This record gives sequence, C-alpha cells and structure tokens, in this order.
Amino acid sequence: MAEVTTPNYTIRYATEQDIPEILRMIQELASYERALHEVLATEEKLFNTLSFPTSSAEKVRNKPGAAKTLLIVPRTGDSSNNNGDDASQGGKEAVAGMALFFNNYSTWLAKPGIFLEDLFVRPQYRKKGFGKALLQALARECVANDYGRLEWSVLKWNKPSIDFYESEVIGAVSTREEWEGMRVTGQALGKLAESGKV
Amino acid sequence: MAEVTTPNYTIRYATEQDIPEILRMIQELASYERALHEVLATEEKLFNTLSFPTSSAEKVRNKPGAAKTLLIVPRTGDSSNNNGDDASQGGKEAVAGMALFFNNYSTWLAKPGIFLEDLFVRPQYRKKGFGKALLQALARECVANDYGRLEWSVLKWNKPSIDFYESEVIGAVSTREEWEGMRVTGQALGKLAESGKV
Repeated sequence: MAEVTTPNYTIRYATEQDIPEILRMIQELASYERALHEVLATEEKLFNTLSFPTSSAEKVRNKPGAAKTLLIVPRTGDSSNNNGDDASQGGKEAVAGMALFFNNYSTWLAKPGIFLEDLFVRPQYRKKGFGKALLQALARECVANDYGRLEWSVLKWNKPSIDFYESEVIGAVSTREEWEGMRVTGQALGKLAESGKV
Repeated sequence: MAEVTTPNYTIRYATEQDIPEILRMIQELASYERALHEVLATEEKLFNTLSFPTSSAEKVRNKPGAAKTLLIVPRTGDSSNNNGDDASQGGKEAVAGMALFFNNYSTWLAKPGIFLEDLFVRPQYRKKGFGKALLQALARECVANDYGRLEWSVLKWNKPSIDFYESEVIGAVSTREEWEGMRVTGQALGKLAESGKV
C-alpha cells in the first residue's frame, strides 16, 4: 500500500539487502542532528531488530515493534528520457532517503497509528518533494487502515523542518504547548527494574 | 514477565473481559487530563484494536501496534489478615490502575523499547506505590528483553507527575528541551494522503 512509483521516484519497502544503506542514513541523519556519537546501531543489530517484507513471516511477527523502512529511489532523468532501467545505471540504485516507522496506539481514539521514527532525505536530493512523498505514503497507509494519527518528533532548533511540517503542504500540528516526553534509559532503566518492590 | 504478585498487589495482563474496566479508566484518565470530550473509544473499538493474551495468537499478531494492558489489583488488607481469596470479596475484583503500552523503536540504539501510552492509578488508590509498581513492571520487561528505553508523554501542567517521574524513585529524563511532537490527524491526514503526487 505504501509502495508507489511515479515518473520521479519509487517508494518501496527496504529488504535485508538494504541494511548497510539504512545504517548509513541513520548515521547521516544523526550527524545532521548533531548526535552521531549517540548512534550505537550496527548492521547486525538492525538485522536482528528491524522487520523486512523479505524476512520469513515468523521472524517479522516475533520482532517487537515490527519497525519497517520505506526507501525513496529517484528515477533518473525525467520521464521523457527514462529508459525504464534506472537501477542499471552505474550498477547501483541510488537511495535518496527513508522513512523508518512503527505502529503506535491512541486510547482516546482506540485506534493504531503510525509513529515515524526517522525521516531522512539526503542533502543532494532535497527540494524535490521527496520528504513530502514519504510522509504522504505513510498518510495513505493510515487512511487505508483506518489509523488515527501520523506522528513524529522534531528537534526544537530545526525551525526549517518545523515550518515545513506545520505548513499547508503537510498539515501537522505541534504538541509542544501540551505534552513533553519522558524517558528512562541506560543505568536508570536497570535501577528502576531492580529497585525494591513497593 | 511483567506479571507479578506481592503481598500488596497483583499486576496481570488484561483480558477481553476487562475491556469495560479499561474503557472506564481511559475515560477517568482523560477526565483528569481535561480531555474527556476527546475520547472516542468504545468497548467494541477496544476489542477490535487492543491485544490480549487470551486472544487467539493469530488475532494478536494481526493487530497493528499490538498494544497491551497491564492491570494492578490491590490485595485486600495487609498480609496479616489476607485470606488469599481477595477476588471473592464483594464478588468482584477491584482494579486500582493500568498501564497500556506498545513497542516503539530507536534507530540510534537499534533496539525496540516500550512506549507507555496510558498510566493511570485511580485517586482512591494513590500514594500506595502502585504507579511506581506499574512503571517498574515495564522497566523489568525492558531489561528482560534488552529493550533500550521506557518512554511516555506527560502533560506540561501536570507538575506533580513530572516531579515524580524525574525523581530518584523513577529516574526519568524529560526531552522537553530538545524534542517536540508533530501530529497529522483527522481531515489533515486525509488531505495529505489525497493531495497531488509530487
């Protein structure tokens, strides 16, 4: 459902063969977010924790969260000189960006939704509508499945992205006035788990 | 794993029989959050979208998000006069609160985690450590499964809860300085899905 091909791009689900490319984009996005030092992901960890349509069904089902990845691949040239065999050029398909997401849930709506964990378009592919195309693919997935919300987080200093998300083009509303996030991780998680029963 | 029994309480997974109680608690929590008018949940919708250990495995797997609910049930009296048959008192088990959660995913860690969508302890059961007990049950689930983070959202005006979460008792860190949430829902979701391809 979320997969789509237009004259300008193809959006498809990532397979296990795309793991090295996914890791590179996770690192490129974290670098842009000034947090490369926080990336502990490796190809092996991604293999063990992400879901792929090419995985056996049992494996996908057993992966908690079942996070999936959409890749956007530009089609070289415009349709007037498209020879229909873009992937063969240079022997390797160019990946312009990705949307890595999982299902969340709203009790108020009593509906699942989509949480977009990572949205990334490589710098040389920006201003082509690829970010909107990925968000749109997820919005279509929501509508097709009667999901209630498409949600994600954005860094507060990333004003250009916030402006884009809140514009008419995307139509997002910020929850900044109402909600804030809480996180227990690392040693604090172990401490909470191990502390005396109450 | 997340299920536990102590002299003071039992934490167990909700079953389909608990749906009316879950709906009441969703409404009670929303009322406390001054958002009762936003609750569109019904028993039927919860039945169709939540996962329960008593559901057939196939049904659980097919539910996107697979949101699950832990209930905390007080054991009447202290252990000195506990007759071991609490549920028989008044013919109905009292439910003190719940934690409704699903798996999320961190690309930086390449690990799933737990997102706690609703944490609620009924007013007459507060100050007994039940909120901590539910958070602790989820923290143990994280540690047992090598999940990276236990996360949730809190209303900015709910200072008592924020202070509790950030205290040594829980050990949470707020993401308020760095991140804000974005949401596309309702008509905007349909508009984004339907707008012209880019």
